Amino acid sequence: MQVALLGGTGDIGEGLALRWAFHADHTILVGSRDAERARESAAAYEDTLRERGVGTDILGFENVDAAEQASVVVCSVPAYHLVDTIESVADALAAGDVLVTPAVGLKRDDDGVHYNRPGAGSVTALAADAAPAGVAVVGAFHNLPAGRLADVDRDLALDTPVVGDDAAVVGTVISLAEEIDGLRAFHAGPIANAAEVEALTPLLINLSTYSDKLDETGVTFH
Amino acid sequence: MQVALLGGTGDIGEGLALRWAFHADHTILVGSRDAERARESAAAYEDTLRERGVGTDILGFENVDAAEQASVVVCSVPAYHLVDTIESVADALAAGDVLVTPAVGLKRDDDGVHYNRPGAGSVTALAADAAPAGVAVVGAFHNLPAGRLADVDRDLALDTPVVGDDAAVVGTVISLAEEIDGLRAFHAGPIANAAEVEALTPLLINLSTYSDKLDETGVTFH
Repeated sequence: MQVALLGGTGDIGEGLALRWAFHADHTILVGSRDAERARESAAAYEDTLRERGVGTDILGFENVDAAEQASVVVCSVPAYHLVDTIESVADALAAGDVLVTPAVGLKRDDDGVHYNRPGAGSVTALAADAAPAGVAVVGAFHNLPAGRLADVDRDLALDTPVVGDDAAVVGTVISLAEEIDGLRAFHAGPIANAAEVEALTPLLINLSTYSDKLDETGVTFH
Repeated sequence: MQVALLGGTGDIGEGLALRWAFHADHTILVGSRDAERARESAAAYEDTLRERGVGTDILGFENVDAAEQASVVVCSVPAYHLVDTIESVADALAAGDVLVTPAVGLKRDDDGVHYNRPGAGSVTALAADAAPAGVAVVGAFHNLPAGRLADVDRDLALDTPVVGDDAAVVGTVISLAEEIDGLRAFHAGPIANAAEVEALTPLLINLSTYSDKLDETGVTFH
C-alpha cells in the first residue's frame, strides 16, 4: 500500500513513517509544503531504519504529489493548518481514497492544556467538511505521544481510538494501525463522536505535567 | 477514616463502598435521601463481603447524617442531582472536609454518548461552586466502569485521573484511591482541567459500544 504522510516532517508524521516502514511493508510517501525538506526527512528516516538493519522505501514529495500517489493519506499537520492542507491536495485525492486526521485543537493556559473544540464539533468533522466528495475521513492517532512513537527502539504497548462514518474504511485504518507492533486501535463510532477522542490528548498532556509518575503519557483500553 | 458515600446506593457508590471496605480499613457510611434504603444497601454490601470472609463496618444513613460524620465525602450521585445534594448536606460539612465528585454530565444521541459540558466549565467546577467555604473539592473516579468496580471478585487494574486545586488534598484522595487494590490515581491538575477528565467517560462508553473487543471499558495510563 502507498501511504502518504502530509506534514510528514513533523513529529507525529515522523513516528508514523518510521513505525510503518519498520513494521509493515508499505511505501511511505513523506509530504511537506517544501519538497526538498520532505526528501531530507525521508532520507533521515531511511538512515534511522538502515542503522537497525531495515532497508525500506521512504520517499519525499511536496504534499500534493505525495497525496496523488497514495490511497491512504494521513494529514499529520497541526489543526491550524488542517483545512488549508486538505484544500491544497484536494485535486490529488480520488474517490475511494482515505484521509486520516490525527489533529487535535489545543489551547494552553496557566492551568494546563485544554481541548479547543471547533464550531464544526471536532477537528475530524472540520476535515470531513473540507475533504472532496467520495473521500472518506477517519480520525485516528490523536493520542500517541510523538516521542515514544518516533523512538523505534522503544516498545509502544499503546492504544488509539478511531472514528469514522464508514465501518469498512474504519476497519482498513484499524488494520493499518495494528500493523505497527504494540499499537492497538479501537472503533469509537462515527465522526460525531470525535470530540471525546480528541479531548483525550489534552488530558494526557496534563497528566504528564502534574503527575510525577507519568511522562509522554499514552493509554491502554481494557 | 470515616468515608461517606452520598448516593451510595447507586452503582458507582456501591463499587467504591465495597472496594474500600474490602481492601482498606475505613468505616464506610452509605448515604441516601432515604435512610432506610441506605441501611438496606449497607447491609447488602456487608453480606457481599461477609460471604468472602471479610467482616467490615458499612453503615447506612440519610445523606446529611453520613456527611456529618465523615471527613471525606464522595458525592456519588448523577450530575443532575449534584448541586442539590451538596446543598442538602452543606450544614454538615466542616472546614477541612474533602468533597469528592465522580459525576459526569452526559448526553446521548443516535451516534453515541457525548460530554455535556456545563456552563461552569465542568461538573467538578459546579461542585466547587456549590461547596461551602473551606471544603476542598476534588474530582476523581469519573472513568471507572461501575460493574467492574462493584464485582469484588474481579481484579481492577484500572487508573483514574484526579483533579483538585489543593495539592495536599489531591494527595489524600490519591492515597485513599490507591488503597483499593488494582486502582492507580494520577493528578491531572487543578479543577480548571476537569473537563478533559470528565470527557473521558463518554469516550469509554463509545468504545464499549462500537468496538467488539471492548466492554465496560476502563483505562491504564503509562
